[in-house]
Amino acid sequence: MTRMTILTEADLRKIVRLDLDAVACVENAFRALATLPVAMPPILRLDIPEHNGEVDVKTAYVPGIDGFAIKISPGFFDNPKIGLPSTNGMMVLLSAKTGLVEALLLDNGYLTDVRTAAAGAVAAKHLARPDATVATIFGAGMQARLQLEALKLVRPIEGACIWARDRLKAERTAAELREKLGIAVRAETDAARAVTGADIIVTTTPSTEPLIHAGFVTAGQHITAMGSDAEHKNEIAPAILKLADLYVADSAKQTRRLGELHHAIDAGLISADADVAELGAVIAGKRHGRRDASDITVADLTGTGVQDTAIAALARDRAKAAGIGTVFES
Amino acid sequence: MTRMTILTEADLRKIVRLDLDAVACVENAFRALATLPVAMPPILRLDIPEHNGEVDVKTAYVPGIDGFAIKISPGFFDNPKIGLPSTNGMMVLLSAKTGLVEALLLDNGYLTDVRTAAAGAVAAKHLARPDATVATIFGAGMQARLQLEALKLVRPIEGACIWARDRLKAERTAAELREKLGIAVRAETDAARAVTGADIIVTTTPSTEPLIHAGFVTAGQHITAMGSDAEHKNEIAPAILKLADLYVADSAKQTRRLGELHHAIDAGLISADADVAELGAVIAGKRHGRRDASDITVADLTGTGVQDTAIAALARDRAKAAGIGTVFES
Repeated sequence: MTRMTILTEADLRKIVRLDLDAVACVENAFRALATLPVAMPPILRLDIPEHNGEVDVKTAYVPGIDGFAIKISPGFFDNPKIGLPSTNGMMVLLSAKTGLVEALLLDNGYLTDVRTAAAGAVAAKHLARPDATVATIFGAGMQARLQLEALKLVRPIEGACIWARDRLKAERTAAELREKLGIAVRAETDAARAVTGADIIVTTTPSTEPLIHAGFVTAGQHITAMGSDAEHKNEIAPAILKLADLYVADSAKQTRRLGELHHAIDAGLISADADVAELGAVIAGKRHGRRDASDITVADLTGTGVQDTAIAALARDRAKAAGIGTVFES
Repeated sequence: MTRMTILTEADLRKIVRLDLDAVACVENAFRALATLPVAMPPILRLDIPEHNGEVDVKTAYVPGIDGFAIKISPGFFDNPKIGLPSTNGMMVLLSAKTGLVEALLLDNGYLTDVRTAAAGAVAAKHLARPDATVATIFGAGMQARLQLEALKLVRPIEGACIWARDRLKAERTAAELREKLGIAVRAETDAARAVTGADIIVTTTPSTEPLIHAGFVTAGQHITAMGSDAEHKNEIAPAILKLADLYVADSAKQTRRLGELHHAIDAGLISADADVAELGAVIAGKRHGRRDASDITVADLTGTGVQDTAIAALARDRAKAAGIGTVFES
């Protein structure tokens, strides 16, 4: 007989929010990734081309966290034609001591949204100027909104810019964020103008061609590129990685294959065996972060299983403390 | 909003049994594996040596089955010390068209037990003599019991023998089976004597040294080896594979790496690129099965994701028809 807690998306939205606790939770996960013998096997990937679908299954064991998440992330790209979202998903949290299923987190991708946005806050906390007040977000979707919200948690953001190719989308998202966050948010369709004057730039797009060119970037800026989670995606010009004073990966192993780094390697701008700082090492004080107000810093985030395990364990603990969820025996 | 059905082990035991329907379900899965463009990615494996634990995640998409299962199988081998079973697990059934989670099958490994035993019946159905009346099972655990039960579904079994190193265990299992199946079942601790006179032999042990030697085997016998699911496991002498008139794998790709075949390859008895018949090809009539009453036949079963997908889809359909399960929205 196994006893598990089932948490719906509505339950999870009540107990896990994009707040400083979520940021601390993800920060701890990155620290663990860089300092502990974390086990993070390669992603299981099933393709169903017949239905334009794919499923990724990710997991990671983090010593010190007593559970580990197995995350199932389907992407079925014909779904919008029948009124369903393309992406979805759930997590299963198992005990790291017994392997018993402790919780089913039916989050429809919500926890992934939170842990991904929280990673943006962690990067800004360790790499952006402490006095950063202006943020520019590339993209107008869910992560664009959440990334700006996340930055506000760690930096005194007073004004923002939303860039999108589609002016209407940019303006709609800017308006929503003005209302939600109570700060000035403008819309832009020109990338150079969007970057000008920003202290922090976050890219959240599925672009396959660089949106930000080297000439756009000025001293003191921090860029987090988090939209690229596949080999063919590329949001910032490879030359920016070379001119930056500091480049930091969430997982060097992953950014050598996905994200932004591998484009710079392919372009011959960075050596394939170059020593790459990881965000967790910066958090742990093993590598330096920003050293000067004029530094240009870059964070390359591809998403890691340790973030899933950390946020799932947080959700389970919160649910237990609040007495939320449906207990199921089987 | 996603709508899914949650089925507990008790629900699943009511609707899925080891019967001819389960055998047909697994037979169809093997046929599909050999004849259709099935997608079956490599197993995701996470090891937690700190707690003597491991987790396997398996999946397969079978064209024609409108759902696919993702199976989570933990094995935590210190669990018995605290009164818990070593193995456990659950399946998630997703729609192959939309990727939405359709059902959570909280089976604690029950469906795996059934689909594994059903595969033994499928092998016997296509490879054992139609008049096989005597069966010998190596092992005294859950699969030993289920394999004998499965054989009775497809062959007129009148008598059986349970072999185990431990006489008490063998006798206890034999007594249980006598009562449950109403046939004569004796216990044996000597492998040669256990094999003598058997028409069908099924090995269900985790042995790492061959239990059945070539000299034990006589004309007309069929052997199914299903205990070996890891590289170091080995239940029957490699020479048996060479002397057999027919060797059949559940998945040639898998038995070249796990199961019995790779030991015969390592021993130089069978060439690494030898053409290997698959059970599904025999079922589909693309390869021959037993051709003569005196043939010695061997089936090498390592367990496949298509069996999981097939049994999970059967469970979902049965649950829907019977109105069983708890509907959950998230």
